[in-house]
Amino acid sequence: MTPDVLKTLADTLEARREASPHSSYVASLFHKGEDAILKKVAEEAAETIMASKDKDKLHLVRETADLWFHSMVLLAFHGLRPEDVIMELHRREGISGIDEKASRPTAD
Amino acid sequence: MTPDVLKTLADTLEARREASPHSSYVASLFHKGEDAILKKVAEEAAETIMASKDKDKLHLVRETADLWFHSMVLLAFHGLRPEDVIMELHRREGISGIDEKASRPTAD
Amino acid sequence: MTPDVLKTLADTLEARREASPHSSYVASLFHKGEDAILKKVAEEAAETIMASKDKDKLHLVRETADLWFHSMVLLAFHGLRPEDVIMELHRREGISGIDEKASRPTAD
Amino acid sequence: MTPDVLKTLADTLEARREASPHSSYVASLFHKGEDAILKKVAEEAAETIMASKDKDKLHLVRETADLWFHSMVLLAFHGLRPEDVIMELHRREGISGIDEKASRPTAD
Repeated sequence: MTPDVLKTLADTLEARREASPHSSYVASLFHKGEDAILKKVAEEAAETIMASKDKDKLHLVRETADLWFHSMVLLAFHGLRPEDVIMELHRREGISGIDEKASRPTAD
Repeated sequence: MTPDVLKTLADTLEARREASPHSSYVASLFHKGEDAILKKVAEEAAETIMASKDKDKLHLVRETADLWFHSMVLLAFHGLRPEDVIMELHRREGISGIDEKASRPTAD
Repeated sequence: MTPDVLKTLADTLEARREASPHSSYVASLFHKGEDAILKKVAEEAAETIMASKDKDKLHLVRETADLWFHSMVLLAFHGLRPEDVIMELHRREGISGIDEKASRPTAD
Repeated sequence: MTPDVLKTLADTLEARREASPHSSYVASLFHKGEDAILKKVAEEAAETIMASKDKDKLHLVRETADLWFHSMVLLAFHGLRPEDVIMELHRREGISGIDEKASRPTAD
């Protein structure tokens, strides 16, 4: 169900968790730790918002890819995988449709 | 390549763009417009960061799902689809590996 | 040194910490707790960014006021005051000028 | 009404707008432009949230100072000053108290 590219990406991210911090951008990010990863998630979310405001579709796709990519680095940091997120989206779709979120008491 | 659930979700989002704002949470969000969608992206990114800080893995998966979901609402608002993001991630993987971002001049 | 309006505001925020959640917006926010306050900080930062992108100066002033206001609610939640922030800004100015941040090892 | 340190800071920021990008951190930030400033606002908001979650009061004061500082860089970019924000906070205080925000139709 999860796209192959997300699985391959997740496998690679996992492999980089134990690699030398000098070996790659991702290995360096894991080495810097949780706060460095969280700052990237915040920064990419902001850049996604800015690309939308600029009505720049190509930039929006790239920034959304950066946002999803760094979300996956965060998941890997916690020993989680994109399959967990895809399953959660599937569960909502299955149980009560994509508006399920609106009906949860904690939503918004 | 893109997981079926993302495609199904994108199809549903597209269908809701023209629906009555009272018919669903997503239709209401489209009706409120771009700024309302962007506020949700920012809010879900913040909640993802907070869930990570809480070391709450279940919450982290849910908030990441919310973040990806609202990213997809934003893509749909601009006439884009998750396939575009998956293709961009695939392109980076193919051309230069997942550390491609680090080599881009604008990356930081 | 700290402007009177910030001091008055901080005094009022402190008084609302123990008030009934139904008595005011701020009392309600304190009652909801830290995560609710943090979500507001994130949301107002996003709205500040959006107002800047819209080149809407009046809106930018209002959103920055919202951002500073909710920062002060967060400070009050932790028993801190705007004087602490003003003192920190003064300290930087005094010691090494406003570019002090750039010289700190953690700055980026 | 606006604290002296904010006024002094704003004066210095204005002076740096036209300075060589190599002369200081702030001059460099102005030279990079609006998006670079907005990314800093987003990043400092995220770091404020993270410091709060860490219950690290000293860090929280420093990150809030960074957030206010970069908000002032953004104001200066648009030809605005902290006095404008302080006046807006004063106006709300005067007209209808600090809960005025809650009563505005756009507040949420």
